[in-house]
Amino acid sequence: MTATVIKGLEVAKPKRVELTERVKALTAKGVIPKLAVVLAGSNEASKVYAQSKQKVADPLGIQFELFIKPDDVSTQELTALIDQLNADPKVHGILVELPLPKTVDKEVVMNRLDPKKDIDGVHPFNRGYLLGGQEDRAIVPATPKSCLELIKSTGVPIEGAAVTILGRGDTVGRPLNSLLINRGATVTVCHSKTKNIDAIVKSSDIVVAAIGKANFVKAEWLNSKQVVIDVGINAIPGGITGDVDTKAVDVVAYITPVPGGVGSLTTTIIMDNLLDAIKLQGK
Amino acid sequence: MTATVIKGLEVAKPKRVELTERVKALTAKGVIPKLAVVLAGSNEASKVYAQSKQKVADPLGIQFELFIKPDDVSTQELTALIDQLNADPKVHGILVELPLPKTVDKEVVMNRLDPKKDIDGVHPFNRGYLLGGQEDRAIVPATPKSCLELIKSTGVPIEGAAVTILGRGDTVGRPLNSLLINRGATVTVCHSKTKNIDAIVKSSDIVVAAIGKANFVKAEWLNSKQVVIDVGINAIPGGITGDVDTKAVDVVAYITPVPGGVGSLTTTIIMDNLLDAIKLQGK
Repeated sequence: MTATVIKGLEVAKPKRVELTERVKALTAKGVIPKLAVVLAGSNEASKVYAQSKQKVADPLGIQFELFIKPDDVSTQELTALIDQLNADPKVHGILVELPLPKTVDKEVVMNRLDPKKDIDGVHPFNRGYLLGGQEDRAIVPATPKSCLELIKSTGVPIEGAAVTILGRGDTVGRPLNSLLINRGATVTVCHSKTKNIDAIVKSSDIVVAAIGKANFVKAEWLNSKQVVIDVGINAIPGGITGDVDTKAVDVVAYITPVPGGVGSLTTTIIMDNLLDAIKLQGK
Repeated sequence: MTATVIKGLEVAKPKRVELTERVKALTAKGVIPKLAVVLAGSNEASKVYAQSKQKVADPLGIQFELFIKPDDVSTQELTALIDQLNADPKVHGILVELPLPKTVDKEVVMNRLDPKKDIDGVHPFNRGYLLGGQEDRAIVPATPKSCLELIKSTGVPIEGAAVTILGRGDTVGRPLNSLLINRGATVTVCHSKTKNIDAIVKSSDIVVAAIGKANFVKAEWLNSKQVVIDVGINAIPGGITGDVDTKAVDVVAYITPVPGGVGSLTTTIIMDNLLDAIKLQGK
């Protein structure tokens, strides 16, 4: 093993200390940060994600409330719940766990969120500010923000770096593209239609894999100076694995593990977004 | 000269025939398409752009009204005008000419537009849908849409193509990046912090220059199979020139001229957006 392994929890720790201080300062002003999580349907992974948010929120002094809806919930029931949470001055952030049941129009629900309480940055308003380079007005989606923090933790400069993002998804690839362009990286987004993907990956300084295919990125595509961020969470017999060949750890300079990398930081970033949202709300 | 020169007006012509038919169909239903252009301050180029919109609108049967405000207009006066136009059922599209006078908060004005009447796609809502790959819900900014039409007119496939965009601006580079990713291109966005820009340009199938520097892209960076779209409009003694070396016409396969390229199509695309907006408005 030649690479330095970037552990999500190690990056999360100082962030949590900082968040604890911010929560204390808000509480002293009479603002007790509160996160509302909407869990619709019986998706097991979503349940686990919701619980992990509560586990991170509690010790930080952040209030957490879970709103559970059945598998056959209607779009209208969910938008009514969103309206209620939007109007509640004690709720500062709303997160709707995905995927939603098939009976629900996801877009209608997401677009109903008050953009200032949309702490995973899914509302077109927040996406638009990000695309327009106006991050100060936006709440940035947590997973790409997490990727950014992990890259920053290596000390490898982002400005001027050649970055390859694998995957053009709405959750990671697209918003991360904007985040990195805003910071002066030269970004290439690769996907299923890309030709010569191995050569593109090989020639880059930073590689972010968010393509959702186990071991898609081969160790032979990588070089010894690279930072590799593996966003993939793919189920395999006996556990989970990332999008990057496990042998990559013997090739590159820095790499995030799966599990224990991006995912371990993202929940903390959600809380960071909650406190940023409170600021945007003028509290 | 070896390149085929892609003339904006040639691409605009069949589009205008199509638009004339669409306007006729709407008028028969009692909907007379109307475009409101807001011209604030005494910027000469903006005046010319506003006039050119009227010249294109008239023969298509599209109503045009110009709203002129002085150099010392306030943000409040402009938002009041936007509110009035948003509420007017006879107005289907609103375009605010840029730049606005320095006394005005541009973001506040742009964000006040009804997203469904925002026919140059500047509202964060429209930008957000574009970033999210949901173009069917968005009004797409006219200049990048024009670039796309010019590329399509060559017949060179966009899906799978390596595209280099020079410039990460809000008006062209960023939205075009999303438009091309949505169509399966592998896009690299280059800018002032990019290293090895010549090699990146050389290895791409399609090059779009929107960097705003006269003759920035050298003929030596280009190859004989490329499509080159030159968005630059740079004032030089005796006229205007693009971002691409004028010698490029002897190197590449297809190139847009300046003037007579992107700009000549964009005004027609604005009218296309107006009719799309009417559709989004459910009329």
